[in-house]
Amino acid sequence: MTMVIDCHGHYTVLPKAHDAWREEQKAAFKAGTAAPAYPAISDDEIRETIEANQLRLIRERGADMTIFSPRASAMAPHVGDQSVAVKWAQVCNDLIGRVAALYPEVFAPVCMLPQSPEADLTSSIAELERCVTQMGFIGCNLNPDPSGGYWTDPPLTDRWWYPLYEKMVELDVPAMIHVSAAANPVFHTTASHYINGDTTAFVQFLMSDLFKDFPTLKLIIPHGGGAVPFHWGRFRGIALNNGRPELDEIIKNNIFFDTCVYHQPGINLLAEVVPADNILFASEMVGAVKGIDPKSGHYFDDTKRYIDKSPRLDDAARKKIFEGNARRVFSRLKTKAVATA
Amino acid sequence: MTMVIDCHGHYTVLPKAHDAWREEQKAAFKAGTAAPAYPAISDDEIRETIEANQLRLIRERGADMTIFSPRASAMAPHVGDQSVAVKWAQVCNDLIGRVAALYPEVFAPVCMLPQSPEADLTSSIAELERCVTQMGFIGCNLNPDPSGGYWTDPPLTDRWWYPLYEKMVELDVPAMIHVSAAANPVFHTTASHYINGDTTAFVQFLMSDLFKDFPTLKLIIPHGGGAVPFHWGRFRGIALNNGRPELDEIIKNNIFFDTCVYHQPGINLLAEVVPADNILFASEMVGAVKGIDPKSGHYFDDTKRYIDKSPRLDDAARKKIFEGNARRVFSRLKTKAVATA
Repeated sequence: MTMVIDCHGHYTVLPKAHDAWREEQKAAFKAGTAAPAYPAISDDEIRETIEANQLRLIRERGADMTIFSPRASAMAPHVGDQSVAVKWAQVCNDLIGRVAALYPEVFAPVCMLPQSPEADLTSSIAELERCVTQMGFIGCNLNPDPSGGYWTDPPLTDRWWYPLYEKMVELDVPAMIHVSAAANPVFHTTASHYINGDTTAFVQFLMSDLFKDFPTLKLIIPHGGGAVPFHWGRFRGIALNNGRPELDEIIKNNIFFDTCVYHQPGINLLAEVVPADNILFASEMVGAVKGIDPKSGHYFDDTKRYIDKSPRLDDAARKKIFEGNARRVFSRLKTKAVATA
Repeated sequence: MTMVIDCHGHYTVLPKAHDAWREEQKAAFKAGTAAPAYPAISDDEIRETIEANQLRLIRERGADMTIFSPRASAMAPHVGDQSVAVKWAQVCNDLIGRVAALYPEVFAPVCMLPQSPEADLTSSIAELERCVTQMGFIGCNLNPDPSGGYWTDPPLTDRWWYPLYEKMVELDVPAMIHVSAAANPVFHTTASHYINGDTTAFVQFLMSDLFKDFPTLKLIIPHGGGAVPFHWGRFRGIALNNGRPELDEIIKNNIFFDTCVYHQPGINLLAEVVPADNILFASEMVGAVKGIDPKSGHYFDDTKRYIDKSPRLDDAARKKIFEGNARRVFSRLKTKAVATA
């Protein structure tokens, strides 16, 4: 029996008090006053949001487990400053920790980081350490563009990011590269900004020696790797022209794509060009694309269907994509799997 | 007999004196002095560069005609100011005009526009008019991000761009949406910035009523539409969730993808999801990806092979992609075709 582990779920429908507090926090920052105290949220309120949404869909669609992190679009590090970001990350991550504690067999927690456009990574490293060592988190989401579409931070391969990578390697946790809401009006958050963020990060890794410096660093590029599989030939050619190895070799132990690609031909392409060892099952639900595809009659983001049906995959490949690769990338997931077995 | 019209070629290997003058122009701008006079370049110098490169490859690969524009990465509108951009566009477009005059049966000219991050579109409109009415150009390249990766201009659907669209409609010429060199170090010009530009522009059109205001405006999104075909399901879902029509309907008369996708699985996907009426043959050579794919033994950018071999296309579709659609989109190409028939 293969377990089905969804490596990319966000807590998108939250207790109302949590969202309301965020608005108060933002208003207080604008007014130059202190944010109010974070409200008490009961376990029942958390259960309600989870059971009506993610848990229901996980069960309906035949998954077993979701690697779960705060709502990506709401990370919004361009809002406020470092202290706003620290508090916001803490309360978001605490909620994720509570979800995982309430449903330990279903949700494995991944944290957001309190990145802020003008700040260094000190607070992000501290929050990562808190989440992993004190609350059992197994990974983090890393935003390559805290500015929200103005791209003011250095490339992810710049040594500026190295202290975070050192901590990730020390804790043995991977990061999913994930931008947040677009503040720049030229971009649509979930349609273009997310996908551009994926493509941009991949190319940075492609052209660098980052994994010589961090041979055990593991990075997940979501949304099927952005544009990368569709342009696999272009990126192979550019790599080879720049004296880099074949893409399979570059990504081998370090870069993984998820399966958040919402149609059968896209998943078929992903499965055709990217080695099965580098693909992790994911749906990103309830997320970017809600609703039923009128042509297929099924939910756009019910990605397990596409994996099940792809003629490019055999059972061994499916086993890797659904379970094996997630266990390899999220090494801290092991403990829980053993504990719940 | 189907003609094979490549809708996306740039003049990438240029007479040395042209490139040298550009360096002098940039240096003069930096120094606050006047640029030197543009050098005399003989027809033989132009013939040499063309015959050793584009013309040789066009013939080797079995194409008939290339719709030809200035080197995209060198447009670099973030360099200098409006007056630098105007002069640079004029000399680049004049060269393209000379190539087309020397080889009227092979090259059809498309112009760059003297966009500049701080300028309005007055000079771009004037240059478009000059090229089309005085030199027989049949289209233009339009840069959605003259800042080179900081994305400071308004979305292409903003009324700020409307005077240009009005002129395009009046002249009945299409635009290829094409960014230039990345000035922002997070982006790699041909690998991530180009592809992100394509995806970004498509989503802007997807979410707007631009084509209600300009029902005959025709826009080509190069590089196979960026990430769009790979994420066709995602974009369909986002469109439907926002009360927009199906993508086929949105793009129908106005948006076209080229075939600059450098591997067989990518072209197969493009052909599977995008209607054949909306695909134009292109190779972008000699351009982003030079050299031979060691796995296939053929040039990465020899895209005609992928079209010829795609199991998703029949002869009728190939005829549209190679010729029919280009004649429809570039209505001014007709004259020349009749003249050379």
